[in-house]
Amino acid sequence: MRIDGALLEQRLDELYKIGTEPGGGVYRPLYGSAWAEAGDCVERWMKKAGLEARRDAVGNLWGRLDGTKKGKVIVTGSHIDTVRHGGRLDGALGIVAGLTAVEALLKEKGKPRRTLEVVAICEEEGSRFATNFWGSRAIVGAIDSPDAAMAEAMRERGLDPATVASAARDDIDTFVELHIEQGAVLETANVPLAVVSAIVGTAHLELAVTGRPDHAGTTPMDMRRDALAGAAAMVQAVESIARSLGKPAVATVGKIRAEPDQINVVPGRVVFTVDLRHSDPGARRALEERTRSLCRTIAAERGLELEVRVLHERPPVPMHAEVRAVLTRAAQECGVQATELVSGAGHDAQILAARCKVGMLFVPSVGGRSHCPEEHTDPGHLELGVRVLVRALELLAY
Amino acid sequence: MRIDGALLEQRLDELYKIGTEPGGGVYRPLYGSAWAEAGDCVERWMKKAGLEARRDAVGNLWGRLDGTKKGKVIVTGSHIDTVRHGGRLDGALGIVAGLTAVEALLKEKGKPRRTLEVVAICEEEGSRFATNFWGSRAIVGAIDSPDAAMAEAMRERGLDPATVASAARDDIDTFVELHIEQGAVLETANVPLAVVSAIVGTAHLELAVTGRPDHAGTTPMDMRRDALAGAAAMVQAVESIARSLGKPAVATVGKIRAEPDQINVVPGRVVFTVDLRHSDPGARRALEERTRSLCRTIAAERGLELEVRVLHERPPVPMHAEVRAVLTRAAQECGVQATELVSGAGHDAQILAARCKVGMLFVPSVGGRSHCPEEHTDPGHLELGVRVLVRALELLAY
Repeated sequence: MRIDGALLEQRLDELYKIGTEPGGGVYRPLYGSAWAEAGDCVERWMKKAGLEARRDAVGNLWGRLDGTKKGKVIVTGSHIDTVRHGGRLDGALGIVAGLTAVEALLKEKGKPRRTLEVVAICEEEGSRFATNFWGSRAIVGAIDSPDAAMAEAMRERGLDPATVASAARDDIDTFVELHIEQGAVLETANVPLAVVSAIVGTAHLELAVTGRPDHAGTTPMDMRRDALAGAAAMVQAVESIARSLGKPAVATVGKIRAEPDQINVVPGRVVFTVDLRHSDPGARRALEERTRSLCRTIAAERGLELEVRVLHERPPVPMHAEVRAVLTRAAQECGVQATELVSGAGHDAQILAARCKVGMLFVPSVGGRSHCPEEHTDPGHLELGVRVLVRALELLAY
Repeated sequence: MRIDGALLEQRLDELYKIGTEPGGGVYRPLYGSAWAEAGDCVERWMKKAGLEARRDAVGNLWGRLDGTKKGKVIVTGSHIDTVRHGGRLDGALGIVAGLTAVEALLKEKGKPRRTLEVVAICEEEGSRFATNFWGSRAIVGAIDSPDAAMAEAMRERGLDPATVASAARDDIDTFVELHIEQGAVLETANVPLAVVSAIVGTAHLELAVTGRPDHAGTTPMDMRRDALAGAAAMVQAVESIARSLGKPAVATVGKIRAEPDQINVVPGRVVFTVDLRHSDPGARRALEERTRSLCRTIAAERGLELEVRVLHERPPVPMHAEVRAVLTRAAQECGVQATELVSGAGHDAQILAARCKVGMLFVPSVGGRSHCPEEHTDPGHLELGVRVLVRALELLAY
């Protein structure tokens, strides 16, 4: 089916004007004014496309096209909030693509058999409150009452914090989302499209290494208990373990802090974080266990103490086999041999998987850039992604 | 000669009461009120001991005992300022020991042949202004005009910033100082006293490693340019190089900072410092060159950029052979086989060496602790240090 590529780009441009930040990019934090403005914009588009728009109790925006038969619905969309200095495509693409796809289907194919909905999920990024996946967690009924600050922010948007439980749905059959890869695997492999096989499981650890602060001049090398030299060996170990486990294992030390942080004092304490990801639950655990074990060995060898704290843990979530098959078939029918890819980033689909079948399509990110103003995908790739999404929705709902 | 050990401890206690800080230790920053109070206290002691006290243009406090013959003078003492949360002995010991020694000599031996002076040097630590060795640099005529903030601080103490050049002296023959080791070499070797052979040369480098910030989930290990993984390899290299060069080489990474400092972002840039020390100029340079070379190699292997900036550089300063011989003989005559030790820390002697013969004695630091409230030396070791100092001053001035 033909897609209006110019309209797609124009809508993405329009959303990217909402919440612009000095220094580049946009910021549309949950329940902020830019967030509200972007929602109003999408709602106008939904109505214009002939969809019935409504907002649920947490502010997820739904655009519904009733099917001719009763039964569970097919949903597509993404999140409307952004990180600080966010780009033009993360989240926005899934909403605009879903709307464009459903609009095209209605125009070309008429009413679907199954009800189709486009959703602008209110929050995924956690960049205002510590609430990652607030919107999708509300849909699967997995949120608690908002705290005072958040409740106040909801009331400012006319939402009643007491009713968040009513956002839960059990009538969704399938959720499909088009998203940018946010990495450079597709670009490097010169592949225009991927069907996501799974979303990785993540563990965030905090490692605190304690040695002894010493004078950098008067303490011979063999009398030191240097927390930073030990931590450096651990950072190296984290990298080696992920490399040796092989793809899709990744491990990252993103934050590090040394104390007392003086040029002429041997660091007595270092705290650093480790972000570990794998799509296989066993391999994810192995990654963590090897990291803990090797870091313990390094600490023991150097007379250092080591404390490991788990900050956050999420299991891997496989995409549903049926949805993957539909997406793969849709790609083939659009003339594309899509690759399979593990998503290293988190997405709403991993939450929605608790209540419905889920699947995702990735289009390439130029240079792998995301969460920044440089976020970009070739317009041809965007259009291809939407064409495959249209065909997949057609296969699912018509 | 007998030393009044109780008086020594009592004077150290008295100084340690001046400038006490919440959280422990003392802080006597240059030209502050605690600094002034400590100076007044030492001045009273000098006068009581029969010395003629005067302050020079930068606030160094001199206590003079005229010799029976003309000629250059013999000086002993140390600095009166402290770091934050400083201990009881760093600096204070050299002043109290010098005063106690000269007092004892005057009492027991009468007027010296050569003039003897005790000095409380105004500043060595650089812990208020970036002025390390301000007092000793003034004595050798190696200071510029103070900046506005410092000039104001001087005026508050009745000092005229325009006259700092007048603090320079060219009539000092020899400077000897008793100091704590500030490391644990003597304690570990179970040796009560050391004659310092040299003060190490120091280079402070800042290394900036630039890679590329990437999403920690979506960027496979083999597509990263992780600045922190590279920096960790460099931190390891710095340690290995110092170990392989052998004593007295030391190398320390004391500060490290990663950007963007987020748990789920591969660090794009890391800045860290390296403190390199050696008593031999060639070995000090070799330490620096090997560090630069190995870090360059690590950066190149990992596709990282590396910038190296020299923040500070001081050459090693050997202690004068004649003074070392006098100190060694004095120790022997006090029944001690003193060891020779390289000072890994900086001291005023390294500055004064430009204008006179210099020498230093070290007594053990319990646990190697210094620049902290735990700074401690066995009273027997303190007394021994003073006895050897007395004998050395006697050999030099009588």
